[in-house]
Amino acid sequence: MKLSRVHNRFSSLLSLLVTLLFFQLFIQAQEHPKLILTKDGVAQIKSNLGSIPLFDKTLTQIKKEVDVEIENGIDVPIPKDFSGGYTHERHKRNFFILQKAGVLFQILDDEKYARYIRDMLFEYEEKYQDLPIHPQERSYARGKLFWQCLNDSNWLVYVSQAYDCIHDWLSKKERKQLEKNLFRPFADFISIENPQFFNRVHNHSTWGNAAVGMIGLVMDDEELVQRALYGIKDANLKTGAKDNDGGFITVEGQEVGFFANLEEPFSPDGYYTEGPYYQRYASYPFLIFAQALHNVKPELKVFEHKDSVLLKSVNALLNLTDADGEFFPINDAQKGMSYFSRSLVSAVDIAYYYGGKNPELLSIAEKQQRVVLDETGLSVALGLQNKEARPFVKESISFSDGSDGKQGGISILRQPTDGFALVFKYTAQGLSHGHYDKLSYMLYQDGEEVLQDYGLARFVNIEQKGGGNYLKENKTWAKQTVAHNTLVQNEVSHFGGAYDVGSKHHSDLHFVDFSKEAIQIVSAKEENAYPGTSLQRTLAIIKDDNLKNGFVLDIFRVKGNKEHQYDLPFYYMGQIIDTDFDYDVPSVLTSLGKENGYQHLWLEGKGNPEKENTKLTWLNDQKFYSLTLTTKTNDELLFTRIGANDPEFNLRRDAGFMLRRENVANDVFAAVIESHGSYSPVSELAKNASSKVKDLSVVANGEDYTAVTIENSTGEKHLFIVCNKKSSAQLEHTLEIDKYIYKWIGPHYYGKIKK
Amino acid sequence: MKLSRVHNRFSSLLSLLVTLLFFQLFIQAQEHPKLILTKDGVAQIKSNLGSIPLFDKTLTQIKKEVDVEIENGIDVPIPKDFSGGYTHERHKRNFFILQKAGVLFQILDDEKYARYIRDMLFEYEEKYQDLPIHPQERSYARGKLFWQCLNDSNWLVYVSQAYDCIHDWLSKKERKQLEKNLFRPFADFISIENPQFFNRVHNHSTWGNAAVGMIGLVMDDEELVQRALYGIKDANLKTGAKDNDGGFITVEGQEVGFFANLEEPFSPDGYYTEGPYYQRYASYPFLIFAQALHNVKPELKVFEHKDSVLLKSVNALLNLTDADGEFFPINDAQKGMSYFSRSLVSAVDIAYYYGGKNPELLSIAEKQQRVVLDETGLSVALGLQNKEARPFVKESISFSDGSDGKQGGISILRQPTDGFALVFKYTAQGLSHGHYDKLSYMLYQDGEEVLQDYGLARFVNIEQKGGGNYLKENKTWAKQTVAHNTLVQNEVSHFGGAYDVGSKHHSDLHFVDFSKEAIQIVSAKEENAYPGTSLQRTLAIIKDDNLKNGFVLDIFRVKGNKEHQYDLPFYYMGQIIDTDFDYDVPSVLTSLGKENGYQHLWLEGKGNPEKENTKLTWLNDQKFYSLTLTTKTNDELLFTRIGANDPEFNLRRDAGFMLRRENVANDVFAAVIESHGSYSPVSELAKNASSKVKDLSVVANGEDYTAVTIENSTGEKHLFIVCNKKSSAQLEHTLEIDKYIYKWIGPHYYGKIKK
Repeated sequence: MKLSRVHNRFSSLLSLLVTLLFFQLFIQAQEHPKLILTKDGVAQIKSNLGSIPLFDKTLTQIKKEVDVEIENGIDVPIPKDFSGGYTHERHKRNFFILQKAGVLFQILDDEKYARYIRDMLFEYEEKYQDLPIHPQERSYARGKLFWQCLNDSNWLVYVSQAYDCIHDWLSKKERKQLEKNLFRPFADFISIENPQFFNRVHNHSTWGNAAVGMIGLVMDDEELVQRALYGIKDANLKTGAKDNDGGFITVEGQEVGFFANLEEPFSPDGYYTEGPYYQRYASYPFLIFAQALHNVKPELKVFEHKDSVLLKSVNALLNLTDADGEFFPINDAQKGMSYFSRSLVSAVDIAYYYGGKNPELLSIAEKQQRVVLDETGLSVALGLQNKEARPFVKESISFSDGSDGKQGGISILRQPTDGFALVFKYTAQGLSHGHYDKLSYMLYQDGEEVLQDYGLARFVNIEQKGGGNYLKENKTWAKQTVAHNTLVQNEVSHFGGAYDVGSKHHSDLHFVDFSKEAIQIVSAKEENAYPGTSLQRTLAIIKDDNLKNGFVLDIFRVKGNKEHQYDLPFYYMGQIIDTDFDYDVPSVLTSLGKENGYQHLWLEGKGNPEKENTKLTWLNDQKFYSLTLTTKTNDELLFTRIGANDPEFNLRRDAGFMLRRENVANDVFAAVIESHGSYSPVSELAKNASSKVKDLSVVANGEDYTAVTIENSTGEKHLFIVCNKKSSAQLEHTLEIDKYIYKWIGPHYYGKIKK
Repeated sequence: MKLSRVHNRFSSLLSLLVTLLFFQLFIQAQEHPKLILTKDGVAQIKSNLGSIPLFDKTLTQIKKEVDVEIENGIDVPIPKDFSGGYTHERHKRNFFILQKAGVLFQILDDEKYARYIRDMLFEYEEKYQDLPIHPQERSYARGKLFWQCLNDSNWLVYVSQAYDCIHDWLSKKERKQLEKNLFRPFADFISIENPQFFNRVHNHSTWGNAAVGMIGLVMDDEELVQRALYGIKDANLKTGAKDNDGGFITVEGQEVGFFANLEEPFSPDGYYTEGPYYQRYASYPFLIFAQALHNVKPELKVFEHKDSVLLKSVNALLNLTDADGEFFPINDAQKGMSYFSRSLVSAVDIAYYYGGKNPELLSIAEKQQRVVLDETGLSVALGLQNKEARPFVKESISFSDGSDGKQGGISILRQPTDGFALVFKYTAQGLSHGHYDKLSYMLYQDGEEVLQDYGLARFVNIEQKGGGNYLKENKTWAKQTVAHNTLVQNEVSHFGGAYDVGSKHHSDLHFVDFSKEAIQIVSAKEENAYPGTSLQRTLAIIKDDNLKNGFVLDIFRVKGNKEHQYDLPFYYMGQIIDTDFDYDVPSVLTSLGKENGYQHLWLEGKGNPEKENTKLTWLNDQKFYSLTLTTKTNDELLFTRIGANDPEFNLRRDAGFMLRRENVANDVFAAVIESHGSYSPVSELAKNASSKVKDLSVVANGEDYTAVTIENSTGEKHLFIVCNKKSSAQLEHTLEIDKYIYKWIGPHYYGKIKK
């Protein structure tokens, strides 16, 4: 009996323990996936399988891709190569496939995917602890799997999702082994052991933060999560240290961690200070970690943070694309990157699902033709199936820069009827990827470049070209002022090309007005690029009934305390058709200068204006363009070609046209750019091959106002006045020009001159 | 009674006369249109209106176009301008619209079109007789409406069709007036008064012949028709005179007129010796006049002439296009011209209707999305409506050159799986538009140029560029040998760049074999370009199971009676990614030479091979390419850029890579060109960025055989042997290489080397 009672007691206890244990296991079994996929989400997806075309299509594609990889077998090579090289590309492919396999396991319930992930993770687990720092020495923060911690962080952002998907399928022992030998050391390596990488406000750190935070969320490791959100305390980084791109590693007193990265580089409008190319890159860790936080820590209300800046940032990104969806190449940016990229599929789906299901986003998703395989993608595919898509209309728009929105900004002038898009940059420096290009602009028509911004000098991930990294010409050419469509004083770049100086300043919006369809206008000022000199540029796209297309009016005003030489380059795309001045072409080509980018320009021709207007007509993409400049007969007109002092053919041999004016203190450079005709190599018809601008004149330039007249080929004349001082939209102005007094309200005037 | 009998007789006579007169009128009324449109054809068209989509669509477009012109009113300005200028373009537009208005009048029975034609014709009639020769003096045969008789002839080819359409609607008096004051003098002017234009074998004369012949057919003027068909007898042209392009005006003993033009420039295969760009231009007068002759003089059996050469020529034209339907730029040719041009719509419809309704032509018509508004176009539209279209499959094909097919030729090697098209030229000179480019080739992939042919130096119809005419750089650069992907001896062009010498010779096909899918091969010889030197080039596209894509094998054998310098340029398109040798880039660019095209090349870099293979890798259109050359360490490797000594920026700044070998009498230049990978700026993934060719070696070169080995990155080695002497497909050969005796049958061998 005694024994029996004891036994009974023991048995009750045991049964309680078993129950508790079971309960705990059950809880845990219910817990994952929770990071990106959730139990509910998976259930929803499963119940809709086979009925939502775009979701099913994406699923089929991904299944095919992963099945091929599983067929090929696992390879976890010893790290060795730069980007573009085998080991780099293999580890990169591994993390993409792991993430996809995780999703397939959850959706299809096929254990082969779980086994594949487990087996590969254990290969990493086996090797990781003994791996030395990556042998390639170029990075300021070398990784283990890759040459830089950045790529190691990419790996963890994706692999934490895969681990989440098979978490409950693994045994506790397996989980413990992976977490102890792989994930926790991995997270510590890219954070504690590399604070110069982790503790910054920079896209690199955003990846690092997301990586550490996401694996922390899966592992229920609150220490990692806190580290991700708020950075490493007492990292003790040396002030003033710089990364490989010349970016500051610490800025004194700066907050770090995910929230600081959300705070600092984003303006209240959602513009990311590095520009859309890097925003696209950083958008994935920003948004995917946000989605994870939303799922696991909804109390943080991450999507509502800073007036929903993350959702706004997706809208900004989409607006910063040309007609083909390609990002405007602002700062360091590879041309051709577009909203068809992987991270934008994710961004669009997340913004749709968490941002009120804006039907315009569906039309972008429709072009992308794929969705993310989770609840967000499901909702997009469903919206498309229900024919809820509306066109995403891109109109003229301005974005402020700076965390407070007070560090200048960027404006895109658009005129849909002519397909024009003009991108005017008056931002802050844009961190280490910024260019010295104050008040520069680029012009597009129908998605084709008319006046180009060079972009970056780098062949991303092409191993033969410097390991796929930034080339030295990025610094010596692409970042320099002369590489941009803006004014260069004395052949020196803005801020002397000094990053620390440039980082202290920003341009300022003077005014912007998109209220009248016929004249989309923006004006901005720069006071610091050249000490002692004020720069102001006003850009407008004007629709004139007498011209087939709208034209760009470009008024660059300079006011200095002494005389300087000024160069104003126009990097037109295409081939010269005509000029209205004589020029000589040299029989031997020399570079235009020795430094600040000038050493990369061949001087292909040189002339002087023959009158007070100078015209260049060129042909590109079957369209005729003309640039009309106000000139003085002692100006120099220079034809340039990029490519001098380029020992490895890293630069494109693109053309430029440059107006050089010497001994100028206060002056105005006025220009009109027309798209006026077309040519077809099939019909061989040239239509409107000649400029319709007969005269462009600066008729006034003072402290208060600058005025120009534009006469077209029919003899009709328009007057344009811009106020150089602040004017409210209500303020009335008067100005006497040619004995006639003009009165108007607001910061600019445009009207026909009666004869 | 008497009176009454007289009256009766008179009355019978009168009635007979009236009947005769009526009958004659009736006959005449029945007679037109008869040239291109016919009474039967019009009736058929009318009965099908509204039921054949593509025909109705074209009709709607053309009606809209003509209605706008009628709305705008008639303008027949006094001739003044070059092509591209107003009066030129206005008269050109007039003849297009007149022809279309004629068709609309016949199909729609709306007299407004007839009135428009009549009114405009009378404006021409009023001015024509008093018009002086056109004021622009450049042409060897100046017109009256245009600066050259060629364009006047264009006018008459179109306007004769318009006249035919309203012929019966006009009064006899109106017809008489137009014929006496406009058409007959017009026809005489471009023939009798300009025999140097009319009496030639040249595309100019074809237009002249068709113009005179077509108006002759409408007017029932047999004298004009005979003149058109057989030329002007006793024109007494001075032997040796040349036209503006340097073409001979007479060749002694040469037949002239339409039939001679059909005889001489077309090979029995339908290849036109000037190349497809000019064939496209001449195809309209050839085919439209043929259609007219078929309708009015069926007894001539013009479409059966010379074994149906006209119909074959359309097939040749379509085969001489890239994947996008653009003509390969052979000889003087503007890139971008394609089978979407007006004359090709006509050519395809005519070839379909008169050539046995080949359903493959329908797929071309489907892409063109318009048809000619006559019986031929109706039959095409009907075929499409009945879903009879079959794909037009372009395979490897050869065309002979020369009226007897014995003056060399041209071969296109195609490999559809990789999208390769290689165009190898071993033709005759190609008349005055020919280039000095013996044994040159151009390479395409998926419709994009890999190794380009420069094309012409001209901006057709762009007035600002030399009146739209040939620019001097066409002669100094585009025609020169060094502008092509072929061998240059001692920096001099083939035949010393002398047209009269070049015109006496042609290259010869050595052999061609398209029977094996894995190796498409052609070999040709040139004995006269450089006296005392024999050239032989063998080109093959080979599909190797170990390489993702097929590759091009290029073996250029030279055999001379003394030593020379040889330059072998490759005008690759794209940007350099990698080389396996060191080179220097100069800090000052100079031109590579002083003449023969070399004066237009900047020398951008220079190096020497480091081993017996030299490799250049480049990126274009998101694909990686590599050129592997067999080299000697004292060879020079030159990087060139087109554009030196180009005072008006007429030339494109395209790149070239040149192998220079000095002091060579007998030698072989072997090369492999691979397309081996891809790059996406969206995924930023570089796949297979490196060449897979490990070694290329010439292992034998003698009178009888040349042999090379190609080793790929897996270590697998293939041997290729070409017979340098004639070999039948049955002949057995043996050759010992590396102690192993190879035996094979036919002119070439390709096989794996067993280790």
